[in-house]
Amino acid sequence: MKELLFTNHVARTIDEMADKLQPASVFVLVDSNTASFVLPRLQSMSKTVGEARIITTKPGDENKNLDSLSSIWQELCDGMATRTSLLINIGGGVVTDMGAFAACTFKRGIPFINVPTTLLGAVDASVGGKTGINFNNLKNEVGLFRDADMVIISTTFFNTLTSQQLLEGYAEMIKHALITSPDMTSRLLAYDITSYTPEPLLEMLKESIRVKQSFVEKDAEDRGIRHALNFGHTFAHAFETMAMKRQAPLSHGYAVAFGMVAALILSHLELDFPTEWLNRYTAFVKENYGAFAFNCKDSDELISYMLHDKKNTCAESINFTLLRRVGEVEVKRPAPLSNVRAALEIYRDMVL
Amino acid sequence: MKELLFTNHVARTIDEMADKLQPASVFVLVDSNTASFVLPRLQSMSKTVGEARIITTKPGDENKNLDSLSSIWQELCDGMATRTSLLINIGGGVVTDMGAFAACTFKRGIPFINVPTTLLGAVDASVGGKTGINFNNLKNEVGLFRDADMVIISTTFFNTLTSQQLLEGYAEMIKHALITSPDMTSRLLAYDITSYTPEPLLEMLKESIRVKQSFVEKDAEDRGIRHALNFGHTFAHAFETMAMKRQAPLSHGYAVAFGMVAALILSHLELDFPTEWLNRYTAFVKENYGAFAFNCKDSDELISYMLHDKKNTCAESINFTLLRRVGEVEVKRPAPLSNVRAALEIYRDMVL
Repeated sequence: MKELLFTNHVARTIDEMADKLQPASVFVLVDSNTASFVLPRLQSMSKTVGEARIITTKPGDENKNLDSLSSIWQELCDGMATRTSLLINIGGGVVTDMGAFAACTFKRGIPFINVPTTLLGAVDASVGGKTGINFNNLKNEVGLFRDADMVIISTTFFNTLTSQQLLEGYAEMIKHALITSPDMTSRLLAYDITSYTPEPLLEMLKESIRVKQSFVEKDAEDRGIRHALNFGHTFAHAFETMAMKRQAPLSHGYAVAFGMVAALILSHLELDFPTEWLNRYTAFVKENYGAFAFNCKDSDELISYMLHDKKNTCAESINFTLLRRVGEVEVKRPAPLSNVRAALEIYRDMVL
Repeated sequence: MKELLFTNHVARTIDEMADKLQPASVFVLVDSNTASFVLPRLQSMSKTVGEARIITTKPGDENKNLDSLSSIWQELCDGMATRTSLLINIGGGVVTDMGAFAACTFKRGIPFINVPTTLLGAVDASVGGKTGINFNNLKNEVGLFRDADMVIISTTFFNTLTSQQLLEGYAEMIKHALITSPDMTSRLLAYDITSYTPEPLLEMLKESIRVKQSFVEKDAEDRGIRHALNFGHTFAHAFETMAMKRQAPLSHGYAVAFGMVAALILSHLELDFPTEWLNRYTAFVKENYGAFAFNCKDSDELISYMLHDKKNTCAESINFTLLRRVGEVEVKRPAPLSNVRAALEIYRDMVL
């Protein structure tokens, strides 16, 4: 990250950044949602955004594809963007991931700023330098690791989010707490995200994003300790895939909340993770997120999805990120299939 | 550059690299020309190439586009490429530029090796980390700066090249000499590239590519002294554009040979570049490359193309890379339009 700013004065910050960079021209990428709900206010408050050429893309992960990317490159061409033009990506993860990739590759790279407008985007998609698009129906199959010139984190946009959207982002904040410290975890489990107030949440976001940053800095290319950030995600991806096949899609944030329950159970079986914390976290999830339901016959299907996960290399065990205790991570821990199956059974007993 | 090897034992070198990298799988990108003329020999001599999945793309700069790139990504998907698969790009600049970009962006980056098969590719396109494709009819509009994991430079493929193709690459070698030293320039002007022998040429290539490397290392992002490598290119691009409009395309290498004549004349007008060297180089070009012909009324058109060149920022002068003497470069030197016009007139007097 070249510059990461936490501020609820977004318009002023963008103008100051533009004053500093002195771009040849400015482009703003939004999707049709942020075009309606976020852009007008920023256009009136920020001279830079007000005078920028607006590029609007279609919302939703299904539009994070080569067609949309090609349209963004085309609009940069049409607007005579040069290597010193600036692209400001304002939106959720789709806009910031795809806009960042477009900027990194247009004329071999122009400066860009990410302004995430969702809690999930703020906590997750804007730090770590992951840019890209889906390709051939595979998520993020084409992309790059490249940091934004600036990321502006603000809670002012979140008043347009539903409780469900807030909870989606909050699952990732809790993940950062679980892999870091009991104190941070306790505070987050005691907080009611659905009735947040902007300034305290901005402070909590700062703490949470610093966690992600510290793991990313230690392992920029995602080959080792950064896998800590995958905590809960192996189960989560399997839950998402099963939900998709049942035509009842599960959001990624909810899947992570449920996946971490299963991952803590497996941590208990494999590494003796303390039951006290397992019970506290599971109660929190049941109360706020409900549960992802499956029956005992579904375990084999879930395990088959996990075996196909790209991080796996052996057919008799599955690699997981697990916790020995809150704040103590083990990455690339191979767990035998028998224990994975047992964890799924215990999950059913605990939450269903 | 992570590793740059000069060798005429290409097959063995590829196998050794594969032994070291232990890739999950190997893909080889060729165009239909290298598929016919180069690939069969490498397939029989190198175990790695023999067992690799072959991706064939259409030859020619007109196919260095998003469609071809998308096909390469698709073939990597179809072949189940993982982040530890290896892509070997064997061909001219189109294959190495586009294959490198595909590798850099597939799953956010997989290892890749470039094996240039033309003199121009060897001397120019394989060092400097420029990857990419044409977009919206603009050359290299989409791309990245990223070094190959290995570049294998060999003269063994050049027996398939025509004299014209050899001269195209040789123009860039002479450029490297002119911006470096009188001694290197003298040796190159005395050598007959069209009757080369492999081993001495490999030594000359080594010296020439080291010149490019040294400029690239000093300025990886191409913002300052690396512009030395653009010597002759502002005129060359204008000649190429005019030739294209006349439906009689001029190859880039020839355009550079002619462009450097004009650039040396302008260097004489602006920086008192010595006439002795100007005359020596001009005689060499006339003898080996002929001349690019235009009449006195064409100067305005050529100047208008140069004014639209992306490196230019002011309408009363044009920025050039010029020489004070052989081996002494000035980058970003603004020359008044009157002197640019004068240089074009003197060019006509000298070569036509």
